[in-house]
Amino acid sequence: MTYCVAMLLEQGVLFASDSRTNAGVDHIATFRKMHLFQDGSDRRIVIVSAGNLATTQSVISLLQKQVKIGDEHILGMHSLYDVATQVGRTVREVIARDSGQQAQGSVDFSCSLIVGGQIRGEQPRLFNVYAQGNFIEATADTPYFQIGESKYGKPIIDRVITAQTSLAQAVKCALISFDSTIRSNISVGPPIDVLLHHRDDFQLQEPYRFEESHPYLQQLRQAWSSGLNQLFASLPDIGIEG
Amino acid sequence: MTYCVAMLLEQGVLFASDSRTNAGVDHIATFRKMHLFQDGSDRRIVIVSAGNLATTQSVISLLQKQVKIGDEHILGMHSLYDVATQVGRTVREVIARDSGQQAQGSVDFSCSLIVGGQIRGEQPRLFNVYAQGNFIEATADTPYFQIGESKYGKPIIDRVITAQTSLAQAVKCALISFDSTIRSNISVGPPIDVLLHHRDDFQLQEPYRFEESHPYLQQLRQAWSSGLNQLFASLPDIGIEG
Repeated sequence: MTYCVAMLLEQGVLFASDSRTNAGVDHIATFRKMHLFQDGSDRRIVIVSAGNLATTQSVISLLQKQVKIGDEHILGMHSLYDVATQVGRTVREVIARDSGQQAQGSVDFSCSLIVGGQIRGEQPRLFNVYAQGNFIEATADTPYFQIGESKYGKPIIDRVITAQTSLAQAVKCALISFDSTIRSNISVGPPIDVLLHHRDDFQLQEPYRFEESHPYLQQLRQAWSSGLNQLFASLPDIGIEG
Repeated sequence: MTYCVAMLLEQGVLFASDSRTNAGVDHIATFRKMHLFQDGSDRRIVIVSAGNLATTQSVISLLQKQVKIGDEHILGMHSLYDVATQVGRTVREVIARDSGQQAQGSVDFSCSLIVGGQIRGEQPRLFNVYAQGNFIEATADTPYFQIGESKYGKPIIDRVITAQTSLAQAVKCALISFDSTIRSNISVGPPIDVLLHHRDDFQLQEPYRFEESHPYLQQLRQAWSSGLNQLFASLPDIGIEG
């Protein structure tokens, strides 16, 4: 599995993804699941992916190829809505191609993607693209999307994140959400890639990578864990007659 | 869905279950998912159930009927292992009966059950019975089982519960685990039934019911929520250049 989360905030957009891929428990590898499309001038588009790795890699390769040959390229589109539409079309194309082969057995070719960022002239936007190629857009009411192994890390996001949360607080929340997931599910693992798109900033940048040994990550995990245990211990018990 | 959790501790066994049943989002009802078999003298057996309600109700009805007619009755068995075996056999019987009918469509008849408690002469024991009728037993290394919508509420249990945790602390942890689940998933809802089996105590008892308005539950939810937000705010930020 995989775990990715993205948050659409007033200050900008946060993206975070883990790097563990597994086919069964004995074929575990590290793959970056965050992909950037940017030109340093008027756009930053980020895609994080979960699901069948063959499908998601093909989708990204085809999107990059389209960029190069200029055919419906997402670096030339005027709206993130058009980008999401193109990503969805490419997802359908890859799944139709791969699942049409013989001897496919019971393989699940599906995937899900979060596509977001900003194109100059628009607000930052965020979309969740499904395996069927359709998609939904984040709003201030529900300013985040998760894909992959999302349930373990959802409660802390539900408790903390609103559209007004700062990007710095959002990074902290995302890392805690990953920590909860990683502790409870071996199919999600570090390193964790994080990218912050600050509103109207289109300078080239690369994802920030948190290795397992990253001092801030270690400090945060330790402080969160001991803080939770202290908080838990501080709450009153109840007497239930057994 | 459903959410149930049970914990095998040195002091005894905790069982907790929610009460919401849904078939789609427009057919929501309240059903108790905790079932007791006790005689007030030498045993207390508790079953909590998740999955297809028709299946789990039939399983419980058949087990109760067996009790009455004395045919392989679980109130007469000498070991909880034999009880788990009988529960598994009954699960297989019901699923085979119901899924053998025509016009079943794509209905999922499966269920999962947690069976535990104590029979005099044995230690307290706890089993997780699968839809296939086989089962696993909790040990000190992994002293708890969850069934149903389990992922949201797993991180807090992983952080807090060991075999040495007291029953009073375990109730607190279970209620927080339910709170995290209920906030993030509408298919799980109160009231929450809790039963504590204190080691070697076989007096008759009924589950303790926490309605949504229960003062302790409200106090705990509020204190946990504000404590989490304070803890979150107290942790240091990190500067990532975006």
